[in-house]
Amino acid sequence: MEHVDRQKQMVGEKAVDYIENGMLVGLGSGSTMYYMLKELGKRVKEGLHIRGVPSSIRTENWAKEFGIPLTDFSEVERLDIAIDGADEIDPNFNLIKGGGGSLLREKIVDAAADRFIVVADESKLVNHLGAFPLPVEVVRFGWQLTKKQIEELGCSAVLREIDDEVFVTNNNNYILDCRFDVIKDSEKLHSQLKSLLGVVETGLFFNMADEVIIGRNDGAEVLKREK
Amino acid sequence: MEHVDRQKQMVGEKAVDYIENGMLVGLGSGSTMYYMLKELGKRVKEGLHIRGVPSSIRTENWAKEFGIPLTDFSEVERLDIAIDGADEIDPNFNLIKGGGGSLLREKIVDAAADRFIVVADESKLVNHLGAFPLPVEVVRFGWQLTKKQIEELGCSAVLREIDDEVFVTNNNNYILDCRFDVIKDSEKLHSQLKSLLGVVETGLFFNMADEVIIGRNDGAEVLKREK
Repeated sequence: MEHVDRQKQMVGEKAVDYIENGMLVGLGSGSTMYYMLKELGKRVKEGLHIRGVPSSIRTENWAKEFGIPLTDFSEVERLDIAIDGADEIDPNFNLIKGGGGSLLREKIVDAAADRFIVVADESKLVNHLGAFPLPVEVVRFGWQLTKKQIEELGCSAVLREIDDEVFVTNNNNYILDCRFDVIKDSEKLHSQLKSLLGVVETGLFFNMADEVIIGRNDGAEVLKREK
Repeated sequence: MEHVDRQKQMVGEKAVDYIENGMLVGLGSGSTMYYMLKELGKRVKEGLHIRGVPSSIRTENWAKEFGIPLTDFSEVERLDIAIDGADEIDPNFNLIKGGGGSLLREKIVDAAADRFIVVADESKLVNHLGAFPLPVEVVRFGWQLTKKQIEELGCSAVLREIDDEVFVTNNNNYILDCRFDVIKDSEKLHSQLKSLLGVVETGLFFNMADEVIIGRNDGAEVLKREK
């Protein structure tokens, strides 16, 4: 196992300690979540009673594989905690998410939680967001026009493809990966993007994360946001 | 034929006079469009060369039925003119659209046009928008949370159903029909709604329509916006 994978496993397992009996839990997406869900499944078998709301179809499948009971927003309207990964984390806990393509469902789940914990390996800590291209979820119809509007905000945008096919999100939209290089004001940029015709959601998560669990070579470190 | 249908036919046919040889034409949705497309098909058979971009799958099917050549935003990035219906039209030509469920594609098409002509029977003219419940297109995942957020803006919102089944848009989203009764500032309300997590687009069209062709019992009347 490479050391990045060891870090992911460590923080994934550490995150499970935050989950208490009776909680409604937002289940994030991405590779670190795999380890968390596997550990959470063990604790459920040992008697932990929780219900999870998955933020992607892949997470839903993993949760089912590991025997984690699930629910959804037709049954619950808030969550106690959400645990999710991130592609970049700045010192104020602003995030870029969406590398895996589930940013919209993740944002809905993470925003519904009273407490939002981010888990990541240390490579995700950055001084400024933006080296990772910002994923923006857009409507398929007329995406070419939406791309033009987005680029007028000062980036180059690329339609995401996987294996030479255009990537389609769980919500039947496309993703534009937008290279801004440095994002100075993530709240402002999010508002500008979200207001555009054809933009469904952005991968900028600000004022959401409460704690970050970072995997380092010598263990998991918990960072708390200064309020 | 009822007199409303006669009015729709009259304005639909009148609108075709705006379409000139060589134009790229946005083709709106709704019942009035049926008459326009039928007449446009006739003129195409007589030798008018145009290409249309349809704003709904229903319009696309009608256009094909009437032999109207089509294109899309992979081939063109602007349109010369768009012609579309509306559910309400206020004295400043602010519109509510989306009764038919195609508001998102319609807005993309109408916004791409240099000139946007609205066609409607006279029952659609109102002093203030809002008696017609405002359609808002929302993401399916977590729509219950989106509804709560929308209602905090001062309306009651109903998930649209057709024949006891939840209505799904051409973009795989849901529609919430939002009863605000009177909308005082349509631009502000649109911004507030569009900024919400889970909202894809609203049925408020402001600063878009250039002319309105209204069907009355004694003929079609053309209204121009004061600039």
